[in-house]
Amino acid sequence: MQMTSDHANLLYEGKAKRVFNSNHSDRVLVEFKNDATAFNARKHMQLRKKGFVNCQISACLFEVLEGEQVPNHYLGLIADTCMMAQRVQIIPLEVVVRNIAAGSLCRETPISFGQELPAPLIDLYYKDDEMGDPLLTEARLELLGLLDREQRLEISRLALKVNSVLSTFLDKLQLTLVDFKLEFGCNESGQLLVADEISPDTCRVWDQRNTDLDGRILDKDRFRKDLGGVVEAYEEILKRIQGVCSKPRIYR
Amino acid sequence: MQMTSDHANLLYEGKAKRVFNSNHSDRVLVEFKNDATAFNARKHMQLRKKGFVNCQISACLFEVLEGEQVPNHYLGLIADTCMMAQRVQIIPLEVVVRNIAAGSLCRETPISFGQELPAPLIDLYYKDDEMGDPLLTEARLELLGLLDREQRLEISRLALKVNSVLSTFLDKLQLTLVDFKLEFGCNESGQLLVADEISPDTCRVWDQRNTDLDGRILDKDRFRKDLGGVVEAYEEILKRIQGVCSKPRIYR
Repeated sequence: MQMTSDHANLLYEGKAKRVFNSNHSDRVLVEFKNDATAFNARKHMQLRKKGFVNCQISACLFEVLEGEQVPNHYLGLIADTCMMAQRVQIIPLEVVVRNIAAGSLCRETPISFGQELPAPLIDLYYKDDEMGDPLLTEARLELLGLLDREQRLEISRLALKVNSVLSTFLDKLQLTLVDFKLEFGCNESGQLLVADEISPDTCRVWDQRNTDLDGRILDKDRFRKDLGGVVEAYEEILKRIQGVCSKPRIYR
Repeated sequence: MQMTSDHANLLYEGKAKRVFNSNHSDRVLVEFKNDATAFNARKHMQLRKKGFVNCQISACLFEVLEGEQVPNHYLGLIADTCMMAQRVQIIPLEVVVRNIAAGSLCRETPISFGQELPAPLIDLYYKDDEMGDPLLTEARLELLGLLDREQRLEISRLALKVNSVLSTFLDKLQLTLVDFKLEFGCNESGQLLVADEISPDTCRVWDQRNTDLDGRILDKDRFRKDLGGVVEAYEEILKRIQGVCSKPRIYR
């Protein structure tokens, strides 16, 4: 399938994915690219097979969430690097759930890297590359009027449920879900869905079988920190998932 | 009075003030310096008379707050650039109240500069120069355990009351209180007090008699933006305040 040449139907191109119109107005094609970016795209590289691995991991994890009644946009795979999804209006928020302190939390609070948090922490960021995805307080979020109160509560509820489902699932594979970023959107009927992707580009995942501080990292921090073996680490996650999940379904 | 040579009693030296022990364990001397800093002290200059003007403005505004039963650390002046204050344990938070969008709010949200906010917005920042005073969400604040729930509510209540009192007071002098930063501390008896200073270094104040976008600025933005006439602008505020207030009391 040559999605990449079909620019006529291109709806949106992001840093790691392209979204295309499908033959149905309520569905879109989501293609995973090999581009890796970090630090608001100031670091950029092509990583062979990343698109494939992230598409497969995302498909599996969306199916896991589906099995636990977490509404999400995924409908099925249509190619190795491409899934069919419900068309949603994306809410311009990055919803980050943290179980262990890492990344910006450690630069912006005195909480030490690696510290387990007493309860999952939800951080909301305004999705805007030019502004550098700034953190939002509840009061600022309300001021922006991006969500009504019901949507705010529903997003928190769903984010915590995703955390609980995926933490449990990955823990059985001896993988620790440190933190992750979700995006949400509303479909044609106004239903709130988990959208975007769930992959090592958007999650921090540590290998419980490896106690080395760098060696245990199986996510995009390998790319950010120039640790090498980025796609190999992503493949390790996929391999463990495939050990317990059937192949993602094909959308027909 | 030569406070500056008395390093033996120096308790703390900040960017714009020095705090000294007094002869009483529950009181400290707060000396206002002529140093002006911005951008986390990357810009630094001496501005003649600034310490004097800010000390006088702070004293007057603390007396205004006192008249409206807002508990604060100010006790009276002991010299032109020095006040006596209750000794407090400072809570490491910068409590910013905004009436009109300016500064970081405009860099971190799509809200335009100069937009009047539908209600005063409170932003809490973790007071830490090395981290660049990062914004705190309610959840992060709770995680840090800096305040109990009662103190959180009391700080919000006091910050809004200070805003209401000072906005009304300054508006009568044809000055608009755009936003300001407070710090809070607890005295020996555990009472929460407005501490630090309230001056054009910590408030944005616009002159209603001047419609020019730069000309109306009477606060530290003149220094940040290299507009010149910094102390002259501060003196204009002091002049208007002195037009309606008696001289700050002398502490004896």
